Amino acid sequence: MPNILILGGDGYLGWPTAMRFSSLGWDVTIADNYFRRHACDKLDTGMLYTVPNMISRAKVWYELTGKEIKVSVCDLADPEAMRGLFDGRVEYDFAVKKGFAGPPDTVLHYAEQPSAPYSQMNYRTANFTVTNNLLTTNNLMYAVRDLSPSSHIVKLGTMGEYGTPNIDIEEGWLEVEHKGRKDTFLFPRQAGSIYHTTKVMDTDLLWFGVRMWGLKVTDLMQGPVYGLETEETAIDPRLATIFNYDEIFGTILNRFVVQAVSGYPLTVYGKGGQTRGYLNIKDTLQCVTMAADSPPESGRLDIYNQIMETFSVNQLAEKVQKAGNARGHQVEIKQIQNPRIEKEDHYYNPTYQGLIELGVKPHYLTDTVLDGLFAVVESFKSNIRKDVIFRGVKW
Amino acid sequence: MPNILILGGDGYLGWPTAMRFSSLGWDVTIADNYFRRHACDKLDTGMLYTVPNMISRAKVWYELTGKEIKVSVCDLADPEAMRGLFDGRVEYDFAVKKGFAGPPDTVLHYAEQPSAPYSQMNYRTANFTVTNNLLTTNNLMYAVRDLSPSSHIVKLGTMGEYGTPNIDIEEGWLEVEHKGRKDTFLFPRQAGSIYHTTKVMDTDLLWFGVRMWGLKVTDLMQGPVYGLETEETAIDPRLATIFNYDEIFGTILNRFVVQAVSGYPLTVYGKGGQTRGYLNIKDTLQCVTMAADSPPESGRLDIYNQIMETFSVNQLAEKVQKAGNARGHQVEIKQIQNPRIEKEDHYYNPTYQGLIELGVKPHYLTDTVLDGLFAVVESFKSNIRKDVIFRGVKW
Repeated sequence: MPNILILGGDGYLGWPTAMRFSSLGWDVTIADNYFRRHACDKLDTGMLYTVPNMISRAKVWYELTGKEIKVSVCDLADPEAMRGLFDGRVEYDFAVKKGFAGPPDTVLHYAEQPSAPYSQMNYRTANFTVTNNLLTTNNLMYAVRDLSPSSHIVKLGTMGEYGTPNIDIEEGWLEVEHKGRKDTFLFPRQAGSIYHTTKVMDTDLLWFGVRMWGLKVTDLMQGPVYGLETEETAIDPRLATIFNYDEIFGTILNRFVVQAVSGYPLTVYGKGGQTRGYLNIKDTLQCVTMAADSPPESGRLDIYNQIMETFSVNQLAEKVQKAGNARGHQVEIKQIQNPRIEKEDHYYNPTYQGLIELGVKPHYLTDTVLDGLFAVVESFKSNIRKDVIFRGVKW
Repeated sequence: MPNILILGGDGYLGWPTAMRFSSLGWDVTIADNYFRRHACDKLDTGMLYTVPNMISRAKVWYELTGKEIKVSVCDLADPEAMRGLFDGRVEYDFAVKKGFAGPPDTVLHYAEQPSAPYSQMNYRTANFTVTNNLLTTNNLMYAVRDLSPSSHIVKLGTMGEYGTPNIDIEEGWLEVEHKGRKDTFLFPRQAGSIYHTTKVMDTDLLWFGVRMWGLKVTDLMQGPVYGLETEETAIDPRLATIFNYDEIFGTILNRFVVQAVSGYPLTVYGKGGQTRGYLNIKDTLQCVTMAADSPPESGRLDIYNQIMETFSVNQLAEKVQKAGNARGHQVEIKQIQNPRIEKEDHYYNPTYQGLIELGVKPHYLTDTVLDGLFAVVESFKSNIRKDVIFRGVKW
C-alpha cells in the first residue's frame, strides 16, 4: 500500500486526515510537536472538550479498526528530526509493527503555526512563526531532495496568500502580457498577517525546489475550514478532532457558533464586508485525498484553490444568527472596531474549479449543516468559557 | 546631524558605506556579528589581504579624520540585540562619545548571509541563510514599528529576486490588466538560489510592514558589485574593504581579475550567456547615500534597480582577458559544466532609471577602471591561493 507521512498530524485537520488515509488503506505515519496544545495551555484559550494525545488516539484507532497509525512526537523545525522520518533514524513513539515505515510516497505538510492573530501578538510570536514555518518547509524540501526525490509533497497553503486584489484570483498562476511579450508567473501574493506572509514564503521556497530539483509539489490554497465531524471522528468520541473557539486558534464559523450558544454577541470586525472562501472539514479530507491520488510530474507545482463557496463576514453572522435563533438561542450581532488592518469592502472573485474537476463533491453551508454544528456545540455548552473568546490581539 | 545605523557594517559594502556617511557628516553606528569573517575562516577561503576588525577600523578612522563611528559587535538575528540599538540598551564595543546615539533616522540593512553558493552547500547552510536573513529583517521591522516608527529603512535587495523573466523587468512594480480589471503588484519574483529566495522573502516581509504599519522603506535591487577603491579607502591601507576572490564569497568580476593575475583560467559556467546588471562599488555608495537622502512617505515602499550596465558572463570574461593580456598576463577562458541550474541564454531587459534620476553619476566598466583593479590585485599577487578559488558547490 502507498505510504503517507502527515506532518502536523495532531492538529484540527491533521488528525482527521490521518484517520481518513488509514481508512482508505494507506500506511500512515504522523509527526507533531504539540505546538498547538502547548500554546493553548500557555495562552489559556480553553477548548470545547479535551482530546487524547497522539499516542492514545492512535491506540484507540488501532483497537477500533485494526489499522496502525505510527506516531512520532518531534520538532520538524529540527532538520535531523525531519530527515529521520526519511532515512529511518526515527524512533516511533507509537507503532504496532516494528521497523521503519520506509520513505513516504506522499508527504502531507500541515506542520505550521497556523494562526494569524498568534503571529501578530508581538515580535516574539512573529519570529517564532517565521522560523517554525520556514524551517519546517525547508527541512521537508531538503529531506525530499536528498533522501526521497520521488516523494510527492502536498502542502497546505492559504487563500490568504493572495490577499484581496482588484482582479480575479486564478488558481495559483497568472499569464502576464507586458510591452508585447508574455510570461507566466505565480499569481501575485500580498498577505494580511505575518502568518499568511510565511505561507507566501513557503510558496517561494517550494517553487524554488520544483524549478531547481524537479520536486513534485501540490499546493492547496485553503480557505477557513469549519465543522468537526468526519466519517472517522463519528466512530468514537475519543477520536474527535481538537476544537478551538477562541479568537486566536478558533476559525471564524466554529467560533461564531460557540458565541451563539453561549450568549456572546457575534463579533463582526468593522463593516463586515470582508469576503473569503470557506469549506467544510469533510471537504478538506476529500481535497487532500484526491490531491494525494493525483501527483504532478517531476518539476511541476500544481496549485488548487481549496474553497467551496464564498461569504462575507456579515453573511456568515446572519446565517449563524438565523440558525441559532431557530434553535432557541438569542443571537445578537455586534459590530466592533476592527482590530485588524484589512479592507472591509472589496472586490473578491476567486476561481476554484480545479478540485471539483478532480472529483470533489462539495458540502455546502446549508441550514442542516449549521444545525448539526449547533447540536454538537450545545452538547458541550457547559465547557464554554466566555472570558477566553475575545483576546484583543491588534494588528 | 542625522543619525544612521548600518547593519552589516563590517562587510564588503558595509564598511566603505560607513566611512562615506561619516565623511558626509552623519552620525554613524555600525553593527555586525563577523559572520563573513568566521565563515571564511571555517571554509578556508583565503583573502587578498587581511583587514583590521571593526573596532580597529573605527579607531583608525577616528585618528585620521576626527570622526566617530560607533561599533556594536552583535548578532542581529537576536531581537534583543536589534532592539537595543533602538532603545539604548546597546553597549558599544567602540565609541568616542559616551551615551546612546539615539534611535536612527535611517537604517541601512546589509546584515544578511550574502552568498548564493554558501546557501546552496547543504541543508544546514540553507537553514542558516533562511533564519539569519529573515530574523534580521523581521527584528528590524518590529524594532522600527515598536520603537522608532519614523525611521527610514534602506534595505539591500538584489536583482536576482526577479530571475530572468521573458518580459522587461520594471523597477519593483508591475501594473497588471486581467479580464478587464487592473491592479498593481510587486513585479513577479522567482529567484535562482536559496540566498536569493530569502531576499524575495525579505521583500514579502517589508511590503507587509509598509502596508500594515506605514513604515518607510527603500528597497535597492542591486546587481553584483565590483571594485575595491572608494574615496575613503584610499586614505589609508588600513581602511581597505574586505575582498574575497573565492567562488563562495567573491563577486564575479573581482574573482575573474584575481584568476587572470594568478594564471587561473576564467571559469565560464556553461554557455556564458547569463546576463546580469553590474555596478562599481563607488556607485553603490552614491546610490545608498542618495536613497538615504530621499526617504519615501510613510506607508510607501520605493524600489530602485541598482545597476549601471548589463553584461553577459562571456562579455565580462572577454573584457578581463583583454585588459589582462594588455598588462602582460596570459589570460585563458575556460568553459566548464555549469554547477548552477540557470538559463544560459535568455531575454534580459531591466529598467534602471530611478537612481540616475535621483542624481547618481555612473562609473562604467571602462578599460581604465579594469586597469586600476588589475593594478591593486597585482600588488597582492603573492597572497593569492589558487587552490581556494573554485569550490565545486553544486545547485
